[in-house]
Amino acid sequence: MEIKKSERIDYLDIKDYKIIQDKNGFCFGIDAVLLGNYVKGRQKDIVVDLGTGTGVIPLIVEGKQGVKKIYGIEIQEEVAEMAKRTISMNKLEEKIEILNIDLNNITDYIGLESVDIVTSNPPYMSVEEGFQNENNAKSISRHEIKCNIDQVCQAASKVLRFHGKFYMVHRPSRLVDIFVAMRSNNVEPKKIKFIYPKLGKKPNLVLIQGTKGGNPEILTEEPLIVYNEDGKYTDEVLKIYGL
Amino acid sequence: MEIKKSERIDYLDIKDYKIIQDKNGFCFGIDAVLLGNYVKGRQKDIVVDLGTGTGVIPLIVEGKQGVKKIYGIEIQEEVAEMAKRTISMNKLEEKIEILNIDLNNITDYIGLESVDIVTSNPPYMSVEEGFQNENNAKSISRHEIKCNIDQVCQAASKVLRFHGKFYMVHRPSRLVDIFVAMRSNNVEPKKIKFIYPKLGKKPNLVLIQGTKGGNPEILTEEPLIVYNEDGKYTDEVLKIYGL
Repeated sequence: MEIKKSERIDYLDIKDYKIIQDKNGFCFGIDAVLLGNYVKGRQKDIVVDLGTGTGVIPLIVEGKQGVKKIYGIEIQEEVAEMAKRTISMNKLEEKIEILNIDLNNITDYIGLESVDIVTSNPPYMSVEEGFQNENNAKSISRHEIKCNIDQVCQAASKVLRFHGKFYMVHRPSRLVDIFVAMRSNNVEPKKIKFIYPKLGKKPNLVLIQGTKGGNPEILTEEPLIVYNEDGKYTDEVLKIYGL
Repeated sequence: MEIKKSERIDYLDIKDYKIIQDKNGFCFGIDAVLLGNYVKGRQKDIVVDLGTGTGVIPLIVEGKQGVKKIYGIEIQEEVAEMAKRTISMNKLEEKIEILNIDLNNITDYIGLESVDIVTSNPPYMSVEEGFQNENNAKSISRHEIKCNIDQVCQAASKVLRFHGKFYMVHRPSRLVDIFVAMRSNNVEPKKIKFIYPKLGKKPNLVLIQGTKGGNPEILTEEPLIVYNEDGKYTDEVLKIYGL
């Protein structure tokens, strides 16, 4: 498998899956790994990952949950092309399909209410927020340039069947925006799990699971602590990484 | 000071303040204590406590923050009367006024946008939820019979000045309802703090601070753990209780 000069290949520690990443682009982090592992899927499930980037979430969900089919939606042409090469490299073309489309037009490609699970690790920062990376691909992955939280929830709601599940990872600072966007798009937030870098610190990530047409009432799960006092991963995180 | 046969007097460990409670009624818990201590007030501040019950939150805020004036709103006549006796017993009539009114009519008694701080420890359970206590006073304190989250937020928003603060304690299960109600009433949730009974468990309470007319973006604070592994209060909680 040939890769470009700016690219590198990493191992995922799941079924020997490999992943191509652009060294100058947006590389996946612990947030994507935690999200991929938060998903609970069944063999018959159809999954859509909104803003799939490198395809890391489809790879983790495929490797850990063994669902029927996963569609990875990616608006950026070069990023989608790289993800397609990753899928070929792992011989997963039958299982994972990368669609180089805008999630705002998702129903042109995926049937209305036809999907069991939607996942998304969307851009965290609003367009106004902070410095926007000069590298366009990084900016699009980090800032809400091509889609905002409401558009992500709207796309999820369109394709999810009744009682289908939507899994998202995001920053806790956007929690009000997320809850409002989910509820207004008929995806009721049902579970949240805060990720704390260390014991006694503020959380820096949050996992959210919504249910299409679900009833109001949310469960705040046990917290996940990433690092021990000595700076090493906690047992829970090591287990997630398969180490 | 005479009390009724069904009543008892407890000490608050703040300036020797005492509080009358009905042994068969709703007695305050750690949630009210945590909320009272979460408030940050200034000497010139006017405060309103919605659904004040025994008056415990006004007493804590008065004792710890020394604000100018606190109004405690209580719809139940006998409960309001008991709170008034508590205020007299502590010689705080100049500082704390109990109003036996419906918070839905709050602006008949408190000026529009005239208040710096609103606090509330409202009923946690929806009308549908769980067993409703036969004792009417307990039911009204526990279930959304006389007011729901949206009405509490609406009342808070009416009396709060621009950038005034709203402090609430509630169950994490209602977080989506709270965020949606606050934002739709122009009180933006700005801070949340989860209360965990023990390390590694699910949180059972949450403190929320909203700001009238605030910008979107919420800070999730460091968690508060109530009990150590040995079942004793943590140092942080002992400090809050003044022990």
